[in-house]
Amino acid sequence: MRIVLRALLFDVQGTATDFHSTVCAEARRIGGTRYRHIDWPGFVDHWRAEYFAALRKAEPDRDSWVTVHSVYANALDGLLGDYGIDLSPDERADLTLAWQRLEPWPDVVAGLNRLASKFTIATLSNADVAAVVNISKRAALPWDAVFTAEMAGAFKPDPTVYRMAARYLGLEPSEIMMVASHKYDIQAAGALGFRTAFVARPLEFGAGGDVDVSFDDDFDVNATDFLDLADQLGC
Amino acid sequence: MRIVLRALLFDVQGTATDFHSTVCAEARRIGGTRYRHIDWPGFVDHWRAEYFAALRKAEPDRDSWVTVHSVYANALDGLLGDYGIDLSPDERADLTLAWQRLEPWPDVVAGLNRLASKFTIATLSNADVAAVVNISKRAALPWDAVFTAEMAGAFKPDPTVYRMAARYLGLEPSEIMMVASHKYDIQAAGALGFRTAFVARPLEFGAGGDVDVSFDDDFDVNATDFLDLADQLGC
Repeated sequence: MRIVLRALLFDVQGTATDFHSTVCAEARRIGGTRYRHIDWPGFVDHWRAEYFAALRKAEPDRDSWVTVHSVYANALDGLLGDYGIDLSPDERADLTLAWQRLEPWPDVVAGLNRLASKFTIATLSNADVAAVVNISKRAALPWDAVFTAEMAGAFKPDPTVYRMAARYLGLEPSEIMMVASHKYDIQAAGALGFRTAFVARPLEFGAGGDVDVSFDDDFDVNATDFLDLADQLGC
Repeated sequence: MRIVLRALLFDVQGTATDFHSTVCAEARRIGGTRYRHIDWPGFVDHWRAEYFAALRKAEPDRDSWVTVHSVYANALDGLLGDYGIDLSPDERADLTLAWQRLEPWPDVVAGLNRLASKFTIATLSNADVAAVVNISKRAALPWDAVFTAEMAGAFKPDPTVYRMAARYLGLEPSEIMMVASHKYDIQAAGALGFRTAFVARPLEFGAGGDVDVSFDDDFDVNATDFLDLADQLGC
């Protein structure tokens, strides 16, 4: 019996949105002429690395959750010191909220609207619920549901997160495809029986960034963007 | 300082959707000519009453959750026996899933689209996530997020459910309005500091049904439907 694909789960930061360009542009705007000499792309790379380090160290549960917003806010304070940048509390708050104003990649809105015509589409993000809601509303991303790590009390790639999404959708993992530009994310889902789609995002860390965009037959689908994914899934 | 309203939370079964008409029509379709003598409106009232009784008795938590789908399925088996109705397993499954195909009231899609232009709009339903997602996708309800009791491990009017939604939205209760046609629901939210909107749904239990539709100055807004709510909130 052929198993029918019913739902797609999407990573948000990096896969659906271009955080590097967005946060660099916001940092340049807020830093202004005072700090035009700063290597903002490098700064954003460091900021993102601090986020990954904090998530790896985190041992949260549903009742003692540390928001990703506070992770970014705390990491920013340290980084600004390292770079010798003096921003006011309001400027720091504004810059931290740049992570809730991420711009989608150019193919995302059109691709999601095509995919939503055939499948249930939802996020499965490590970002906070509020961040995903704010990003999605601003960019008109047509999710049928927002699922995040915060709802599971664990961060991807913890199996708890993927299993939560399947339980909430009332579907088997084999009826759901995890879509991400990060191989660790779709590999973790694949190990639990989810189908997998890799989407290449060569500019995730800006021009010249070090990104693995190689297609791999281990994944059910390899796509260049969300429009290509829609083509391959018959939407 | 005037507190700005940022988000609206909506009850789904009864407030946004006309479960009585939908489930009656599905029961008539599935029962067919064999059971055209059955008082289907009365049957649906009994079915809904069994749901409320089961929820009142439930003492769930997030790790031992009983889905509303299974509550409806179990209640149906008993009711069919009481009414002397013999449906096949497939027909029972189809009829139980009628609760995931609820039609919105005629004002809901237009009203929500107006409200979504100014506010974050989300569900706060006792129905299962899968049910709310399926209803909403079928009816094109433009939620920014789907929140349900299942995510909180408790049913409304337990304070846990309302507090979960505020935490996920990253907002204070005073920045959020609970919208429902059931006074116990908005009173519970109001007691926690949420703003309240009562929407009258005189046909919730069909023509001649016993429904409290009286406006009350204790609520921040009293509205005849979602279009009136949008008018009153300046959308």
